[in-house]
Amino acid sequence: MLSFECDYNNGAHPLVLAHLLETNEDLQPGYGEDCYTQSAANKIRRFCGTPNADVYFLAGGTQTNVVVLSAILQPFEGAVSAKTGHIHAHEAGALENAGFKVLDVPSHQGKIDPKELNALFAAFYADANREHMVFPGAVYLSHPTEYGTLYSKAELEQISILCKQYDARLFLDGARLGYALASKNTDLTIADICRLCDVFYIGGTKVGALCGEAVVFPNGTMPKHFPNHVKKLCAMLAKGRLIGAQFDALFTDDLYLKLGRQAIETAELLKKILHEKEYSFFLETDTNQQFVILENENMQKLSESVRFGYWEPYDATHTVVRFATSWSTTFEQLKQLEDVL
Amino acid sequence: MLSFECDYNNGAHPLVLAHLLETNEDLQPGYGEDCYTQSAANKIRRFCGTPNADVYFLAGGTQTNVVVLSAILQPFEGAVSAKTGHIHAHEAGALENAGFKVLDVPSHQGKIDPKELNALFAAFYADANREHMVFPGAVYLSHPTEYGTLYSKAELEQISILCKQYDARLFLDGARLGYALASKNTDLTIADICRLCDVFYIGGTKVGALCGEAVVFPNGTMPKHFPNHVKKLCAMLAKGRLIGAQFDALFTDDLYLKLGRQAIETAELLKKILHEKEYSFFLETDTNQQFVILENENMQKLSESVRFGYWEPYDATHTVVRFATSWSTTFEQLKQLEDVL
Amino acid sequence: MLSFECDYNNGAHPLVLAHLLETNEDLQPGYGEDCYTQSAANKIRRFCGTPNADVYFLAGGTQTNVVVLSAILQPFEGAVSAKTGHIHAHEAGALENAGFKVLDVPSHQGKIDPKELNALFAAFYADANREHMVFPGAVYLSHPTEYGTLYSKAELEQISILCKQYDARLFLDGARLGYALASKNTDLTIADICRLCDVFYIGGTKVGALCGEAVVFPNGTMPKHFPNHVKKLCAMLAKGRLIGAQFDALFTDDLYLKLGRQAIETAELLKKILHEKEYSFFLETDTNQQFVILENENMQKLSESVRFGYWEPYDATHTVVRFATSWSTTFEQLKQLEDVL
Amino acid sequence: MLSFECDYNNGAHPLVLAHLLETNEDLQPGYGEDCYTQSAANKIRRFCGTPNADVYFLAGGTQTNVVVLSAILQPFEGAVSAKTGHIHAHEAGALENAGFKVLDVPSHQGKIDPKELNALFAAFYADANREHMVFPGAVYLSHPTEYGTLYSKAELEQISILCKQYDARLFLDGARLGYALASKNTDLTIADICRLCDVFYIGGTKVGALCGEAVVFPNGTMPKHFPNHVKKLCAMLAKGRLIGAQFDALFTDDLYLKLGRQAIETAELLKKILHEKEYSFFLETDTNQQFVILENENMQKLSESVRFGYWEPYDATHTVVRFATSWSTTFEQLKQLEDVL
Repeated sequence: MLSFECDYNNGAHPLVLAHLLETNEDLQPGYGEDCYTQSAANKIRRFCGTPNADVYFLAGGTQTNVVVLSAILQPFEGAVSAKTGHIHAHEAGALENAGFKVLDVPSHQGKIDPKELNALFAAFYADANREHMVFPGAVYLSHPTEYGTLYSKAELEQISILCKQYDARLFLDGARLGYALASKNTDLTIADICRLCDVFYIGGTKVGALCGEAVVFPNGTMPKHFPNHVKKLCAMLAKGRLIGAQFDALFTDDLYLKLGRQAIETAELLKKILHEKEYSFFLETDTNQQFVILENENMQKLSESVRFGYWEPYDATHTVVRFATSWSTTFEQLKQLEDVL
Repeated sequence: MLSFECDYNNGAHPLVLAHLLETNEDLQPGYGEDCYTQSAANKIRRFCGTPNADVYFLAGGTQTNVVVLSAILQPFEGAVSAKTGHIHAHEAGALENAGFKVLDVPSHQGKIDPKELNALFAAFYADANREHMVFPGAVYLSHPTEYGTLYSKAELEQISILCKQYDARLFLDGARLGYALASKNTDLTIADICRLCDVFYIGGTKVGALCGEAVVFPNGTMPKHFPNHVKKLCAMLAKGRLIGAQFDALFTDDLYLKLGRQAIETAELLKKILHEKEYSFFLETDTNQQFVILENENMQKLSESVRFGYWEPYDATHTVVRFATSWSTTFEQLKQLEDVL
Repeated sequence: MLSFECDYNNGAHPLVLAHLLETNEDLQPGYGEDCYTQSAANKIRRFCGTPNADVYFLAGGTQTNVVVLSAILQPFEGAVSAKTGHIHAHEAGALENAGFKVLDVPSHQGKIDPKELNALFAAFYADANREHMVFPGAVYLSHPTEYGTLYSKAELEQISILCKQYDARLFLDGARLGYALASKNTDLTIADICRLCDVFYIGGTKVGALCGEAVVFPNGTMPKHFPNHVKKLCAMLAKGRLIGAQFDALFTDDLYLKLGRQAIETAELLKKILHEKEYSFFLETDTNQQFVILENENMQKLSESVRFGYWEPYDATHTVVRFATSWSTTFEQLKQLEDVL
Repeated sequence: MLSFECDYNNGAHPLVLAHLLETNEDLQPGYGEDCYTQSAANKIRRFCGTPNADVYFLAGGTQTNVVVLSAILQPFEGAVSAKTGHIHAHEAGALENAGFKVLDVPSHQGKIDPKELNALFAAFYADANREHMVFPGAVYLSHPTEYGTLYSKAELEQISILCKQYDARLFLDGARLGYALASKNTDLTIADICRLCDVFYIGGTKVGALCGEAVVFPNGTMPKHFPNHVKKLCAMLAKGRLIGAQFDALFTDDLYLKLGRQAIETAELLKKILHEKEYSFFLETDTNQQFVILENENMQKLSESVRFGYWEPYDATHTVVRFATSWSTTFEQLKQLEDVL
């Protein structure tokens, strides 16, 4: 069956698997001290143009969000997030389990509005009772957001300035960063992200890897004894090479960018087809996720020939669904989709 | 260079990798809902002879210890462990980070003495101030232990009886379980472990997999909403298939047992060689880890031709070191070792 | 200076202090095992009409909220609260520090709307991804709310029914419960609260005591080893008698109700004066807190002769302020206030 | 009945209560911003001879231990304690609940041996795997210890030097500090404690107060936003004046020292009587706690006329019991005890 329900429903890109295979018998130390992890970190430093960056590999997105935020927050602080941010809505309270509150601001198609962020900061620091409240010590963004939308350079600059002004760190969740960087409609480069964020991660799980996310502290500000913190949060793999080798492959010969482009180009075609077939968009984005409104009976019928993601009820007789492309989506698959739409 | 320093310094068994490859393009749901994870769980149920067991896959050992113990402990309880137990000594305080205390008993070459365990329980329940103390709500064992030693069936039975008597759950850390089951000098079977433990795990990372441990609740007593708990502890992989497919391969055609046997047979030869070369044993075990005492200067010289694990100082001029075989150790490698010893 | 800024700016009622004095030299066991604590618990059971209730004394409001909620929530659950609920807004993230998320619903002058609560439950249980989300395991209400408003019997009944339907516990924060029970405009009795809630507390700190809150599980459902939980959360006093003796006095000869009435009667007079002086109400309530809108310059001038609480900016030139009466407010003080308003 | 079982079985010293009474109607801000708390802090600064000290008041001992240690430890650190230390043995796992491990060293009548502490530090920093272990970031001492014993100046100096050498903070639990300072056999002054410790507390609960402990950071190194941390750990009282006023009284006209002396002088007489009556000492100390060995049948008989503390079994037919004096013990009571011994 055709499958457009998400971007993590198959394995890894063949070159990633090949690298796991070819390095399999090499004897290497554990816990991320292996040469593939070192090589991957170096390639990412070059990719980012930040020779002094600290790079650390973790297994998944929720884990990365919690490990990073709990390391950069002080005990009296919490993290600001859009109401629809992954840490707030879909991580089973993992950040709170680590002891930190999420302070929410409204979500605008997944994005934080810098003006509303400013208002939150200003109100907090104007409040005489703030010692009884949670300090906004970090801002959490996802880029692309959970809705596939992107921040512009101007927006991220505004947010970055606010963070500096109010002594908050800026953390960008890049679970799908490859799809942001490859978008045809973005002015935000990896160099901008490195310049504007205190820490971010380059997502592997949804962009060609079996698992793995690369945390980047572009200015080399990784907290002291970060590996101990990772171990304490149960996030250290004995065979760190599993993630290191995958990123070593992803950052060889621009593979990561190529995978991003494949998802974007197929998404562009997907949008074109959806328009031609006169589907009604709930949200049309510049990345790999597209949201359309289906009449419930049609949705039922369509689900017999293609998998898509149920997003939310639209009204009594319609539903919002998500079609997602990925690095592995082919033009052939889109042709088949066209036939059943 | 020859490498006997640990059992996690290479990748996965070729059949495990092959299964990842052959299933790579199959589209499957995420978060452990894929068919390979289901298949692996079924094979493990058969292997254990426990058709009603709950089986759940996690990525690594520390993670598994914390996820399981924090799920089976009540808020007023802690876990009893030998002083050398992995949760007490080498997990960076991960269980305490989850809010639970480790109550230690002496270590006898890594093992808990049932008499001393009984004394701990008895003293606790005789103490009038026990509401101000941590209840011993679970017993944590490793089998093999961190020192490669094994519990006998009689010992595990005694411990199991004590646990039932004092309302504590029994959890067995089987990071190297394959090497226990394949030992030539054990009377403890997987059926015994299922009968005597409330929960245990079958280690993959150190027995042929890239990562992954299979948690088994033999009586189907997995806590309610366990997947939510896993997510909250940042331990859920989006592509759960990565672990599921590996265990699917490990439990096909007795591969897991065969891997165990390879490590044991090479360990038996290793012991023979060490005896013939008149090395002084600190601890000779029935599994894949052997501990010998080296004169410091000799140790230095030997380390130029073979890697081994530094364990602890023995006296001013000697050191305890560990030689470990694994599923991937070959008889050829032992021949080479013999030449350099 | 006249002082109407809050209800915790002096010491205790003379009869409460007198009881501390007259019991001071009596030798009693520690940790709440003393006879005054037992006596107070019995008097509260009688007051509530719940002979099987479990009653436990803690020192303060935030502490009580966290100790109770963390005891009644399961690991996969969080607490639903109005956005303005004390646990969400003014406890420095204490509940999150204990590992639990607050799930917020809109605040209607401090109150939860049963319809919106129903919508939250329904949406949660309709969501296929709910294993990745925090289960709404308890509902937190304050009565009176932080805005001095009260739930009606019909409202609390609706909320209680929803809680039973969706397997959530109902917890009522009664930091100012004395002022709710004494209100002239409430149909909700202590018997109703006992019938409808799983657990609530009777506030002492703001109603005549130096410190102390009485937690009541009306049906005797106090979690197992609750004292151990209290100790683990650092909330157990060695001299538990300090709180026990105070509640013993508060629940002798209806003192608690008398204190409530004094605050309500002075609040009624306060409202009358404010109306006569043509102050503009932001929120006029049936309890001891009244909110009025002051022009900023007038506010400045008024603050020279009376203390009141700054609540929030109203617009560029006006501010919302709070006038609070308490058990210790006298009619004489109101007369003085009338002169300066 | 005569009562020598502990030092917290009655209320407060009359002058402490009197100060609560005389300040009762004074209107003061909440949360420790009142004038009595400020006055008490100033008096304690003078008492300590540390004009720049930060002084903060909390309600009880376990609470103070957890609030302080969790504020001064970094996430990768734990606290070293004697095996019998209160944080390790009798706080229901409260420090672990806050996320921090206790690293234990042997107890020598309650005390840490500086040599063994040095060995712990040295072994930790020599261990190549220390990133997988808990860093010894603080040393916890009690003075007097749980066994009534005292550190000498030389011992505390050695421990302090080790702490500086190994980058650990030194925290002294002074729940019974008054009885240490008044001991006839100590060379350790409050000035020494201020010079050698990073933080300590002056116990009130066991030395004349209803509740309360005064935390002292002698060098003004209280962590940033400490009140927020206190709030987050549920340890802030709305009426902070309750503790402030008590310490204000305790540090007026040397009352705290006088209370200490009364306990010590009655303890000296107690020891004399026990010797004359030929009781067998388990541990004879220089403070207010004395431990004797009773034949079990005699113990039973004696318990009909005097209360004492059961400590631990000595052998099959004998038990160790504790006799404790306190600030409120009178010479008349000792005369009565003499008659029944």
